[in-house]
Amino acid sequence: VRENNQDQAVELVEDLHAADIADLLEVMSSPQRVGFIELLGERLDPDVLVEVEGAAQADLYEHMPNEQIADAVTELETDDAVYVLEELGAEDREEVLRSLAADDRVAIEESLSYPEESAGRLMSRDLVAVPEFWTVGQTIDYLRSENEDIPDDFYDIFVVDPSHKPVGTVPLSRVMRTHRPVTIGEIMDDDPTLVDVAADQEEVAYQFSKYHLISAGVVDQSQRLVGVVTVDDVVEVIGDEAQEDILALAGVSEESGVNENFIEVTKDRFTWLFVNLGTAILASVVIGLFDATIEQMVALAVLMPIVASMGGNAGTQTMTVAVRAIATKELSSTNALRVVNRELMAAAVNGFALAVFSGFVAWAWFGNAFLGGLFAVAMLVNMVVAGLSGVLIPLGLNRAGADPAIASSVFVTTITDVVGFFVFLGLAALFLL
Amino acid sequence: VRENNQDQAVELVEDLHAADIADLLEVMSSPQRVGFIELLGERLDPDVLVEVEGAAQADLYEHMPNEQIADAVTELETDDAVYVLEELGAEDREEVLRSLAADDRVAIEESLSYPEESAGRLMSRDLVAVPEFWTVGQTIDYLRSENEDIPDDFYDIFVVDPSHKPVGTVPLSRVMRTHRPVTIGEIMDDDPTLVDVAADQEEVAYQFSKYHLISAGVVDQSQRLVGVVTVDDVVEVIGDEAQEDILALAGVSEESGVNENFIEVTKDRFTWLFVNLGTAILASVVIGLFDATIEQMVALAVLMPIVASMGGNAGTQTMTVAVRAIATKELSSTNALRVVNRELMAAAVNGFALAVFSGFVAWAWFGNAFLGGLFAVAMLVNMVVAGLSGVLIPLGLNRAGADPAIASSVFVTTITDVVGFFVFLGLAALFLL
Repeated sequence: VRENNQDQAVELVEDLHAADIADLLEVMSSPQRVGFIELLGERLDPDVLVEVEGAAQADLYEHMPNEQIADAVTELETDDAVYVLEELGAEDREEVLRSLAADDRVAIEESLSYPEESAGRLMSRDLVAVPEFWTVGQTIDYLRSENEDIPDDFYDIFVVDPSHKPVGTVPLSRVMRTHRPVTIGEIMDDDPTLVDVAADQEEVAYQFSKYHLISAGVVDQSQRLVGVVTVDDVVEVIGDEAQEDILALAGVSEESGVNENFIEVTKDRFTWLFVNLGTAILASVVIGLFDATIEQMVALAVLMPIVASMGGNAGTQTMTVAVRAIATKELSSTNALRVVNRELMAAAVNGFALAVFSGFVAWAWFGNAFLGGLFAVAMLVNMVVAGLSGVLIPLGLNRAGADPAIASSVFVTTITDVVGFFVFLGLAALFLL
Repeated sequence: VRENNQDQAVELVEDLHAADIADLLEVMSSPQRVGFIELLGERLDPDVLVEVEGAAQADLYEHMPNEQIADAVTELETDDAVYVLEELGAEDREEVLRSLAADDRVAIEESLSYPEESAGRLMSRDLVAVPEFWTVGQTIDYLRSENEDIPDDFYDIFVVDPSHKPVGTVPLSRVMRTHRPVTIGEIMDDDPTLVDVAADQEEVAYQFSKYHLISAGVVDQSQRLVGVVTVDDVVEVIGDEAQEDILALAGVSEESGVNENFIEVTKDRFTWLFVNLGTAILASVVIGLFDATIEQMVALAVLMPIVASMGGNAGTQTMTVAVRAIATKELSSTNALRVVNRELMAAAVNGFALAVFSGFVAWAWFGNAFLGGLFAVAMLVNMVVAGLSGVLIPLGLNRAGADPAIASSVFVTTITDVVGFFVFLGLAALFLL
């Protein structure tokens, strides 16, 4: 379609939602993309700049002239404009900022001064704020005026005092259902959930999903209303944060997604693989301590990976539950002891059942009951250690201020490998030979 | 606080948001909880029934009298009422349904007739729908009337034709900014995103986050508007679905969360551990094939877990990226070939670098250059196999209609273990001895 009839293609694309155009760009190959970007030129919807990800984003930002990016940024809402500027290279960012109107530039530069992934970056500065003594009628008349500061979409009206501190909120639907003479003060919720401008976006997302918010006011250090975060931005954050955790547990980052190029992906994965090579060598050093024992009874070499693998799986199960529970604030110091106890019991019961079963398998396989017994004991010990470290390591990392999703796996699997090999081969060296 | 001064405690709790009361219940021990539920009695906010999870939910549903649950259900919005009834035991559900008013019962039974996790279960039946020819003034007057069908909170007004089929939507803020004589038809968006009543909630969440929706109309098979899904329900779904994927990759389900009791947790984890015991034994059988080789050169037993572990890690990295990309629809048949190619190259490059390094380590360790070379070759082969299976297995499971998050890990780690041991020990048997 795209190649043959360009005019028709452009018309088709113009009718699409920005998110769909972004998807289209993402599935194209790089040369197709560049041709497409040049073909569309200024007819490209500015929102596509916000929606596109990965290699397609890099191509788009590179091949779109900076003046066009500046025009697009002017049309976008503050939070989206800030996002586009964040993603631009330093040089292009300077150039785009210089060509913006003074007030737009100041607003964007102020937003960029807030820390990354903070409410300040996420918020839009366009909001509707009215004094408490206004009536519903006055408010509606104000909204019907041609005031430029009123955003296109809003869901709550903020009620502020003379120093612009928020004292309440009113959902739009309530304003709509109230007769004109009633004052805003009478119908407002007077204990609004407010977000600090420096708050981490994960904290903001937590508040939104806990209290089912649609929008929340953002206040600066002096408690003045400076912006509004709306739920559509939060939906993205929630997806991103969960995504980050999943990927971090497997030792990859966002840089490793399907839309990234080969070099990013390779670099991103190397670090983790290298760290794991180190821990694997450590586990092998433990095996090396017992080479004489293995030489005398090769069945040990056959069985030892099972002990390590079962510990690794049990540890990963517990660790994943713990990492998620910490991220969603379901696990804290209040219930840590109870959760640790429960994990210990679960590990002991499952460990016992599987150890007994495995012990009989080993006995039947190698015709050696004593070997089967040692194998079972080693497995039980390793699974209990796995259950304990699976919950204690994420809790410890969290208390130490580290992100448990990133570092927990390495520690847990190292412990279960080392303990698994050491206990099994050590017991064998002591009692079997 | 809770024990000593009951009246004061009750007052404190009554001021809290339902989500906070639910959190409080979740961190309490079971006897504390039961006392607290009895103390609060009918003063308990009905929304707590919707917010509470895990063991606390079981305690609450069990210790609250069914008449009180029925009263609470009447007060809740349809989607929340349906959720509470879903979670009740079959007997209690019958009893609660019987004690509801006829119209509430019919509405809830109809919702319950939709498949689990479908838009029909998620939607609320209370919405605002007006004909296209109404003016903004008429619409506002209708909203100000004491009509019982108008929900407390709504964000979009639906425009319907005489057969109640949706023809457009208008965001509330736009109605608010328009003068009274303008007709709704003039200001509506005439291509609204609609959701099928049978659509899976994951699909609904995808639409919401892609198109930044706040609410979307739900239509039945004959395209008539039957309800509305709002973004707060979707926020929950997005969190839940990502959570499910993270947990599934580690072989646990929601039943294994920190708020669940010991028996649930133990049962939930057993299956996965048992399956993994099977695959671990399979890998050990492969080792057993080469027991004579290992007996002659025990260094093989020391090094072999490194080959398997590096393959496992590389496979898990690729698999996690692939599983998430399939879930977020970033990976499909359109770009599958490109992604497979990229993963293959990344695996080859990282595999080569790490294999060369590991080969030298093994050479230095055991003073045998030929052993080091074989070790490096085995690692490279296993990491390439890992990269390939990490993306092909999730794609294959997805095409076969299975959830890639649930089954991929078992297949990938089995392949990397078996291939790792077989290639390394096999090469050694062929060339080293």
